[in-house]
Amino acid sequence: MVSKKPIAIVIGVGPGLGASLAKRFAIGGYSIGLVSRKESSVQPVQKKLEQQGHTSLSVTADASDILSMKNAFHKIRTEFGSDPEVLLYNAGRFIYNSILDLKPETLKNALNISVIGGLVASQEVLPSMIKQGKGTILLTGATASLRGSANFAGCSVPKFALRSLSQSMARELGPKGIHVAHIIIDGQINTPNQMQSQPDRDINSFLNSDAIAEAYWQLHVQPRSTWTQELDLRPSIEKF
Amino acid sequence: MVSKKPIAIVIGVGPGLGASLAKRFAIGGYSIGLVSRKESSVQPVQKKLEQQGHTSLSVTADASDILSMKNAFHKIRTEFGSDPEVLLYNAGRFIYNSILDLKPETLKNALNISVIGGLVASQEVLPSMIKQGKGTILLTGATASLRGSANFAGCSVPKFALRSLSQSMARELGPKGIHVAHIIIDGQINTPNQMQSQPDRDINSFLNSDAIAEAYWQLHVQPRSTWTQELDLRPSIEKF
Amino acid sequence: MVSKKPIAIVIGVGPGLGASLAKRFAIGGYSIGLVSRKESSVQPVQKKLEQQGHTSLSVTADASDILSMKNAFHKIRTEFGSDPEVLLYNAGRFIYNSILDLKPETLKNALNISVIGGLVASQEVLPSMIKQGKGTILLTGATASLRGSANFAGCSVPKFALRSLSQSMARELGPKGIHVAHIIIDGQINTPNQMQSQPDRDINSFLNSDAIAEAYWQLHVQPRSTWTQELDLRPSIEKF
Amino acid sequence: MVSKKPIAIVIGVGPGLGASLAKRFAIGGYSIGLVSRKESSVQPVQKKLEQQGHTSLSVTADASDILSMKNAFHKIRTEFGSDPEVLLYNAGRFIYNSILDLKPETLKNALNISVIGGLVASQEVLPSMIKQGKGTILLTGATASLRGSANFAGCSVPKFALRSLSQSMARELGPKGIHVAHIIIDGQINTPNQMQSQPDRDINSFLNSDAIAEAYWQLHVQPRSTWTQELDLRPSIEKF
Repeated sequence: MVSKKPIAIVIGVGPGLGASLAKRFAIGGYSIGLVSRKESSVQPVQKKLEQQGHTSLSVTADASDILSMKNAFHKIRTEFGSDPEVLLYNAGRFIYNSILDLKPETLKNALNISVIGGLVASQEVLPSMIKQGKGTILLTGATASLRGSANFAGCSVPKFALRSLSQSMARELGPKGIHVAHIIIDGQINTPNQMQSQPDRDINSFLNSDAIAEAYWQLHVQPRSTWTQELDLRPSIEKF
Repeated sequence: MVSKKPIAIVIGVGPGLGASLAKRFAIGGYSIGLVSRKESSVQPVQKKLEQQGHTSLSVTADASDILSMKNAFHKIRTEFGSDPEVLLYNAGRFIYNSILDLKPETLKNALNISVIGGLVASQEVLPSMIKQGKGTILLTGATASLRGSANFAGCSVPKFALRSLSQSMARELGPKGIHVAHIIIDGQINTPNQMQSQPDRDINSFLNSDAIAEAYWQLHVQPRSTWTQELDLRPSIEKF
Repeated sequence: MVSKKPIAIVIGVGPGLGASLAKRFAIGGYSIGLVSRKESSVQPVQKKLEQQGHTSLSVTADASDILSMKNAFHKIRTEFGSDPEVLLYNAGRFIYNSILDLKPETLKNALNISVIGGLVASQEVLPSMIKQGKGTILLTGATASLRGSANFAGCSVPKFALRSLSQSMARELGPKGIHVAHIIIDGQINTPNQMQSQPDRDINSFLNSDAIAEAYWQLHVQPRSTWTQELDLRPSIEKF
Repeated sequence: MVSKKPIAIVIGVGPGLGASLAKRFAIGGYSIGLVSRKESSVQPVQKKLEQQGHTSLSVTADASDILSMKNAFHKIRTEFGSDPEVLLYNAGRFIYNSILDLKPETLKNALNISVIGGLVASQEVLPSMIKQGKGTILLTGATASLRGSANFAGCSVPKFALRSLSQSMARELGPKGIHVAHIIIDGQINTPNQMQSQPDRDINSFLNSDAIAEAYWQLHVQPRSTWTQELDLRPSIEKF
């Protein structure tokens, strides 16, 4: 299944943003490497992409496990026969806990998923990007990227860390032609789970995952004279 | 010259970003109201728009003068026969001075151009936008919006002020369907003046004004589930 | 009433923070110049200082009026016979308004009180400070210095502007030995007015004005190896 | 060696800031628990404290190792016979590397030292602090806490993470009477090592570790009506 199209990899694929990112970049002309921890998360996405005539490849990997991530990239590169031009890093874990109850091992795991996984994934795609003098790395942030709220250290510590990684990479890699941007998603996404669990909630208070994916795409196609490093996204009626 | 198309107004039109914004929104289907202090700045832009088959109207006004601004909006509304759906606020003044040499009257004028003008312009377009339940207000920021550098109070004080206005308006008006966003332009734009005055400078170190205008347009077309309040723009090789 | 002690000037004196700042710096060995718009605000403060054996001088001036401010500084310099070593800029105006109802003239006035007044006052004290190679300028910020909330543009626009001025001055003047710092007061101060108007409110939810003044003093006495440019202050139980 | 005085613990003790913090809080009336990875770092500090008549206890522990940290706290609690009232978290690791050369394991280790260690240490002292309704936790940040610079991800990722932890703890624990603050040290400290390795450097460009320790002490003694969550510290001549 060697791909003649350029490759985009999505890390963290479920029925929400990951699926929308895959679809948007597929429509944009990319073959998609889908990486998720669970086969059951990634398979329906791949199936749908194929039904729509897009090329994709799904791999299960644990973003918190360095070797597992390396294997996933190796598999995608080998099967598609070329290196990714786009990395969409969307892995994360939601934790809500008093600081007294936040287990250090849980925070380590969340950091591994977020920032260590983001580093490993970036290092997998960067050598080729640097050689080509181009590439796009987009990292998914959240409200917690900017603010450490009470009981949210489990979310905000990894998200602050990922934001820092995005800035450091952007400053080093921009001059080499690689666009690194960080997207702050400030609100809940209209995933099936979120919507079913809050049936009475105003539908306008959810971010639309396809619209988010469009924002990622627009970042990707920015010409290098005019790059965004960071933007926020939220519903019009969201308090912030 | 009653306009059947919706109206976008650009405040602060010269050969650089203002012209590109006018062009982009004209292509997007808008009749353009062009407002600038000098007839010589705005006329060539209008002429070019007309040559390309777009509808536009140019008005001279001093953004620092409340009455002058109100008159400009009145004229545009009257001639086009309807209220603007889009306000692109791009007025500003560059000042570089030791704090000892920054005349209070100069800083007042810069504040009047930036944030008082921004308030007046917004108040001119908001009643109709609120009635329609939709509208877009995009405000042009700069590096100085985030950082008060030595000798740059004349720039940063007005730009911080405008950023504050943008946040306050976004939070009040978002739930009413009006999208207020702030664009941080971090670098120099490829205006004829800038490029001629620095002939040896790497052309890749300038922001492209058409690409900036595209970013504004993309903000304008974001669906209300997924709005950006702030983004930055800079050349890939810019240090930041 | 020539002062043998060094001079500190407090702009914006009422029964709350202004009075506490005056007292703290008087205890610290300074003669105090008190500047306020209303004689009735400043006289009780001066009277109390004198009862406690401190030297002070009260002048009425309108912080939004450049000439009025210059006259106030002239009078203090002349009467005390020397130039101030410390400027505590505490003037401000509270405005709460929908963006639709915020009169441009009101915002201008608020900007004049905050940032134009801050610039004028700084320019009055800086020449002597630069000559001496030392001096302290402390500027009072607020929650609104960092965040433009809905209906708070009248507060946040001037406070963002003042914060920008503080940064720009700090970066230019630090190397000249002048310490410029910005204090973000995040909450309500225990002024008589505030407390009387909210009789049922938990007293622990107010900032103590004497404690704030102590924080200003500690900034003032920081050695120049180790200066703070910005800090926040809030009650332990404040949500933020 | 049961301590009749209250206990302060310093994590990350060397000849620079750690030693100054220990001295300042000892002078302030605390018995000091000194924790460092290397006996050779902590012993001279303890010796000096004892020569000056202060009570201290030194324990070696690896801040990146959860069990090692827990043991250190257990030992200090047991020997001193009571729980710490003050935690000064000063552990960190300097890393300078291209993003391509930053080993994931190295970043993990840096995160373990910084934010996992900070969490573990906080969890060791918090139960007693919450019971008492008072306590102080001060966390050492850096320039890299606010900015992810090129080649500095190894520093900034852990420091962003620690800052997030500080915010989250402050917001949860402030209402319980525990003061959590974050100190951004923006520049190099006058440690013997730093000064010897840059013999030609202007001595005024170093932060003074005793002055930093004084700033920590002033945070500690702030009354709870008026707490600082974050401040920065830098030499007057530092560019920032």
